[in-house]
Amino acid sequence: MISPIEQKVLDAIDLPGLLAFLDQMVAYPSLGGNESPIQRFLAEQMPAMGLTVDVWQLDFAALRQHPAFSIEIERTEGLGVVGQMGQGDGRSLIFNGHIDVVPMGDPANWHYPPWRATLDEGKVYGRGALDMKGGLCCGLFAAKAIHDAGVQLKGKLLIESVIGEEDGGVGTLATILRGYQADAAVIMEPTQLMIAPAQAGALNFRITVPGHSAHGALRSEGVSAIEKFIPLYQAIMTFEAQRNAGVSDPLFAAYPIPYPICVGTLQAGNWASTVAESLTFEGRFGVAVGEDVTAARRAFEAMIQQAAQADPWLRQHPPVMSWWGGQFEPASIPADHAIVTTVGSAFTAITGSAPTLQGMPYGADMRLLVNNGATPTLMFGPGDVRKAHQPDEYVPLHDLEVTARTLALTALRFCGVVE
Amino acid sequence: MISPIEQKVLDAIDLPGLLAFLDQMVAYPSLGGNESPIQRFLAEQMPAMGLTVDVWQLDFAALRQHPAFSIEIERTEGLGVVGQMGQGDGRSLIFNGHIDVVPMGDPANWHYPPWRATLDEGKVYGRGALDMKGGLCCGLFAAKAIHDAGVQLKGKLLIESVIGEEDGGVGTLATILRGYQADAAVIMEPTQLMIAPAQAGALNFRITVPGHSAHGALRSEGVSAIEKFIPLYQAIMTFEAQRNAGVSDPLFAAYPIPYPICVGTLQAGNWASTVAESLTFEGRFGVAVGEDVTAARRAFEAMIQQAAQADPWLRQHPPVMSWWGGQFEPASIPADHAIVTTVGSAFTAITGSAPTLQGMPYGADMRLLVNNGATPTLMFGPGDVRKAHQPDEYVPLHDLEVTARTLALTALRFCGVVE
Repeated sequence: MISPIEQKVLDAIDLPGLLAFLDQMVAYPSLGGNESPIQRFLAEQMPAMGLTVDVWQLDFAALRQHPAFSIEIERTEGLGVVGQMGQGDGRSLIFNGHIDVVPMGDPANWHYPPWRATLDEGKVYGRGALDMKGGLCCGLFAAKAIHDAGVQLKGKLLIESVIGEEDGGVGTLATILRGYQADAAVIMEPTQLMIAPAQAGALNFRITVPGHSAHGALRSEGVSAIEKFIPLYQAIMTFEAQRNAGVSDPLFAAYPIPYPICVGTLQAGNWASTVAESLTFEGRFGVAVGEDVTAARRAFEAMIQQAAQADPWLRQHPPVMSWWGGQFEPASIPADHAIVTTVGSAFTAITGSAPTLQGMPYGADMRLLVNNGATPTLMFGPGDVRKAHQPDEYVPLHDLEVTARTLALTALRFCGVVE
Repeated sequence: MISPIEQKVLDAIDLPGLLAFLDQMVAYPSLGGNESPIQRFLAEQMPAMGLTVDVWQLDFAALRQHPAFSIEIERTEGLGVVGQMGQGDGRSLIFNGHIDVVPMGDPANWHYPPWRATLDEGKVYGRGALDMKGGLCCGLFAAKAIHDAGVQLKGKLLIESVIGEEDGGVGTLATILRGYQADAAVIMEPTQLMIAPAQAGALNFRITVPGHSAHGALRSEGVSAIEKFIPLYQAIMTFEAQRNAGVSDPLFAAYPIPYPICVGTLQAGNWASTVAESLTFEGRFGVAVGEDVTAARRAFEAMIQQAAQADPWLRQHPPVMSWWGGQFEPASIPADHAIVTTVGSAFTAITGSAPTLQGMPYGADMRLLVNNGATPTLMFGPGDVRKAHQPDEYVPLHDLEVTARTLALTALRFCGVVE
């Protein structure tokens, strides 16, 4: 299963070095908008890993023109960093990872230093250790092992360190506008070592329900926006149930609700004894793989409209709806695509187990590479996304090792080796 | 119906003077905590109206010891002002009015200057014109007319200008601790010229509903506090319906819901695509006339507890409830009390119409005078409380005139006249 050259490369994977490097990466508090220091650091480190480096300032004015441009944190500057190895005769491959992280939240909830990578009982803790400096580090150390083993790839391997994934994907979009494209890509987002050839879409929505204020002592003279929210919420839940009842995609069979609608925030009224004259709620609307986003939005809007029609007050005072923030299209590639089978066979060679193929329910940069970058992409990476954005975020050391080894083997097999 | 002495007093009521004085009163932005300038002004003006004046600094340390003490705006100082006339041989009577006003809100919503009293088509606009500088002004000008007509009251008439009604009633409580008590009192709150021998109670509550956060893409792994709010809200509405189904008090027959429960505010979650891990809502719980406040609170708590028991999650993670802010007891006096019949006959003498007796659904200082001040009290005053706390708050000129005249006649008849 594993050739001598492959074994040489696997033997060259420097796990202690990977951990030390991950610690250096986590030490950069690379929150959205503050990504340049770590990008410069990576660009400096890449040549020693056998990578030639392209570093450039993002052209936000140009990016803003692109239909897929999405940003929530305003930036005046940001760097693109792409490392490259391989002579360019075989198939090209991208390893993509974002280096922006979300805020650490209340430090009191952390039992480990958020801005260090701390190994404790097989888990590496730290903000971004999981999401997803760990995964990116695996890609870098896979390339480094190839280089250290003296092996040269036939096709090109590109390592993209991108900013702004958490707030819309501007960094990956910038690599596309820079001209980067490949025969396949792997994004090392946390998938618990599952291979994800599909990701669901997610559309943020906001709905404001009008009421009519009155003194609480005379509440029947007002109309409570809180009361009027309830039938809308129930209509949304019924809509979710209907949409999910028909899902037969085996990649999403593991999820109780493949494409959930989550109402996440709610705010109403301004005084305890005044009838609430307005209620605003926000949520995320899960879009199925293969579903047209525009059609999905229309169906959602029609459902809200219909629910409003059923209520005499809402019929006259319709809820006001908007789509804002993250508008993530779904994306998928064929489950028998060469990158899927290559990662799968590499995973089996490393672990002795068959790979699990599963769709991911969350949005990530995969949609940009697939839908805008003409690059068939899957997600495969260490750790469980449930720990992302949490205090004591962690990635299992075992997953880091399996990922680095699988990625190295994938690069060798997908790009080919100069004999 | 009206004696010559009474007619002399009624003829002495100076309506243009009242309007000019109301304008001066409205010009003081006497928001809670900023009441001393207008209190000093009134104390200066009272002697020319035939009133001897008691002005004192409130002793907040002593007030704080009283079980009925309630305050939402912290104050370092505040003035009590009570004017007095009459020789003290007959029945004593209090006219009570508060001079604190609520904030004007967004000035863009006003079509009249908020800090002037502007007469337009029979309505006097301005912050506090209705709630309740207008009513207090009527009391003052009733006294002034008695003085100007050269009539002397047998019993004592006390005019209490009090602070802090809007945030709990500290000013009226201070008059009680100062020793002021009378055979009856009239509070000139806006009742649309109805006589209110009863007021409902109101208790502010706050309930926090626990949930369990999860990524919105995996929402079935979390528990939405928003979802768990709905059965609690429905239980509250059922409880309200049950409590009001049995109300037979004719004083509250005019209200569709005599003792409403209003959920006024609601806040849940902190991110659109995260399952809300907590929801907090606030409201006011209407308490029936004659109902024991402690028993009412217990019934409410038991209902919430029972609703929580019906849900597997809430049974394990019960909602957290607290009583906060306004905790207003109900209050009432017999509908055939002498002050009720006296105001009623005076009203009929002035207007030619029978008075309407109606309970008021909102809390005011009446509870303090009745329950803590040993003074039988009703509310009777100009204008509609629905316009209170609103932009373009107004009081009808006609109501001011009827109130001033009815109060003058009430004082003459209740306190008696020195022949």
